[in-house]
Amino acid sequence: MSALVLGHMNPDTDSIVSAIAAADLYSKRGFSVAPAAQGEPTPETEFVLRKFGLTAPRVVKDVAGKELWLVDYSDLPQAPAGMDSATILGIVDHHKLGDVTTSTPLEAWIWPVGCTNTVLKNMYDFYGVEIPKNIAGAMLCAILSDTVIFKSPTCTEADKKAVDALAKAAGVTDVKALGMEMFKVKSAVEGASMKDLVFRDYKDFDMGGKKVGIGQLEVVDLSILANVKDGLYEEIRKVKGEGRHSVFLLLTDIMKEGSEMLIVSDDPSVVERAFAVKPDGKSVWLPGVMSRKKQVVPNFEKAFK
Amino acid sequence: MSALVLGHMNPDTDSIVSAIAAADLYSKRGFSVAPAAQGEPTPETEFVLRKFGLTAPRVVKDVAGKELWLVDYSDLPQAPAGMDSATILGIVDHHKLGDVTTSTPLEAWIWPVGCTNTVLKNMYDFYGVEIPKNIAGAMLCAILSDTVIFKSPTCTEADKKAVDALAKAAGVTDVKALGMEMFKVKSAVEGASMKDLVFRDYKDFDMGGKKVGIGQLEVVDLSILANVKDGLYEEIRKVKGEGRHSVFLLLTDIMKEGSEMLIVSDDPSVVERAFAVKPDGKSVWLPGVMSRKKQVVPNFEKAFK
Repeated sequence: MSALVLGHMNPDTDSIVSAIAAADLYSKRGFSVAPAAQGEPTPETEFVLRKFGLTAPRVVKDVAGKELWLVDYSDLPQAPAGMDSATILGIVDHHKLGDVTTSTPLEAWIWPVGCTNTVLKNMYDFYGVEIPKNIAGAMLCAILSDTVIFKSPTCTEADKKAVDALAKAAGVTDVKALGMEMFKVKSAVEGASMKDLVFRDYKDFDMGGKKVGIGQLEVVDLSILANVKDGLYEEIRKVKGEGRHSVFLLLTDIMKEGSEMLIVSDDPSVVERAFAVKPDGKSVWLPGVMSRKKQVVPNFEKAFK
Repeated sequence: MSALVLGHMNPDTDSIVSAIAAADLYSKRGFSVAPAAQGEPTPETEFVLRKFGLTAPRVVKDVAGKELWLVDYSDLPQAPAGMDSATILGIVDHHKLGDVTTSTPLEAWIWPVGCTNTVLKNMYDFYGVEIPKNIAGAMLCAILSDTVIFKSPTCTEADKKAVDALAKAAGVTDVKALGMEMFKVKSAVEGASMKDLVFRDYKDFDMGGKKVGIGQLEVVDLSILANVKDGLYEEIRKVKGEGRHSVFLLLTDIMKEGSEMLIVSDDPSVVERAFAVKPDGKSVWLPGVMSRKKQVVPNFEKAFK
């Protein structure tokens, strides 16, 4: 039985592409592995897979008894069912260290960079394995997505260096044009339900013992979301109703470089404590805030303490 | 303020040498760091430091408010006081993933190899940093110690390859002779109190909610321990009395390649469940068992479930 390489819930482009890339690298290192995902690709990820002729990994929602390589996360709230009886062989990630533990030694590559695919690019180099052209293209897109075309405060020199090398390997000459093409696909809301939009990039966190959901939609212009904003607010009210203390939805304008945050919370004052701005009822504009991981989660964690 | 590079409680040679080596590497990568240790070096570690002209890291027992790089562990029971308010910047390790978590992204290099210094050797190579001759010698000894001169089942090809390269860098021509010289020092019990011997390489574990202590003494011939065995047994009875469910002490004969395990437990039947052998009262001979990490801890974890 092959081990599964599996990213987090509500998979984004980094999570799906890193499963594909890690499965390629591990199989070339001699491991028996197959990529998997906890859900279907988003429109952005579909665009990336189609552009580079890759297939979406099969969807796996229960990993009981399986061997796993985790990519792009290390916390149990983002893991699938059956983790208790799964064996974790390794982790590749770029987030804070979560509450996953193992009962045997593992191989973990976790770096404070903008994207898991940046770590994987370095792992390919370390093991002297050549990156297939199509996988290099998808990895490049994952880094552009996670770093918001280098604009996110999570972006590091290592990410830029990886993009340069991956662009060469993939034969991509205009990296920023490819990034904008991808973000235009990501910005589209036509045909998507409110639930689809809220969960497109959504994560639950345990903050001071409280369940807090934070979603993010990144668009090239906030006006794209003008007609759906009320619907999104109603949707996160429902999500909160399922036993959460708070749900926040970041509507990020990647050109203006800031986020409007929609707020539903048992204690809206946490927003003021976290960001030192007073919310205007249901929402607040957070200038310069682009990164859930680096700017939003740490501030809320402190505020919830 | 420099960040501290700090190994686990009851530091062994790997823990102390990896703090020294990681501090050297990180400082050459541009970080402000200093090596530290949670205790004084054992006679084996003292031999290694003296042999290669290195100084023991300063002892630090409280890390409140400090920035830390962890080496050779990732679990809270082995961490010093003050971890709640410390910031973990990174981990280099070769054990199972423990319950340490972080609130910000970190740099973790954790590999399923025989020794943390094997991971560090590869990190030096990855970053293109030359290993100083004396540090290479100490790293070599740490790998020989952790892998019991390649005899432990934890020893991998990566460890042997690292030893070859480190021996060249350190100018050591007879690796096995150096290993035996070191293990003879490690075997010596003269002048040490029973408490010193039990805690020379001792770790507490949480197994199914129970506190379980496992120590290990490695000697070149078990007869060396004949005169102290009763004293060691009395000592682990005391250690158990301090609120533990069980304390086990492995007396490992590195030439015969097996361990006598001294047993004090509220439920001695766990030994039978763990190893399918019936203990003879206070102890049991476990042929082929050399590694606490790979052979003893996983078996007990299953038995305690």
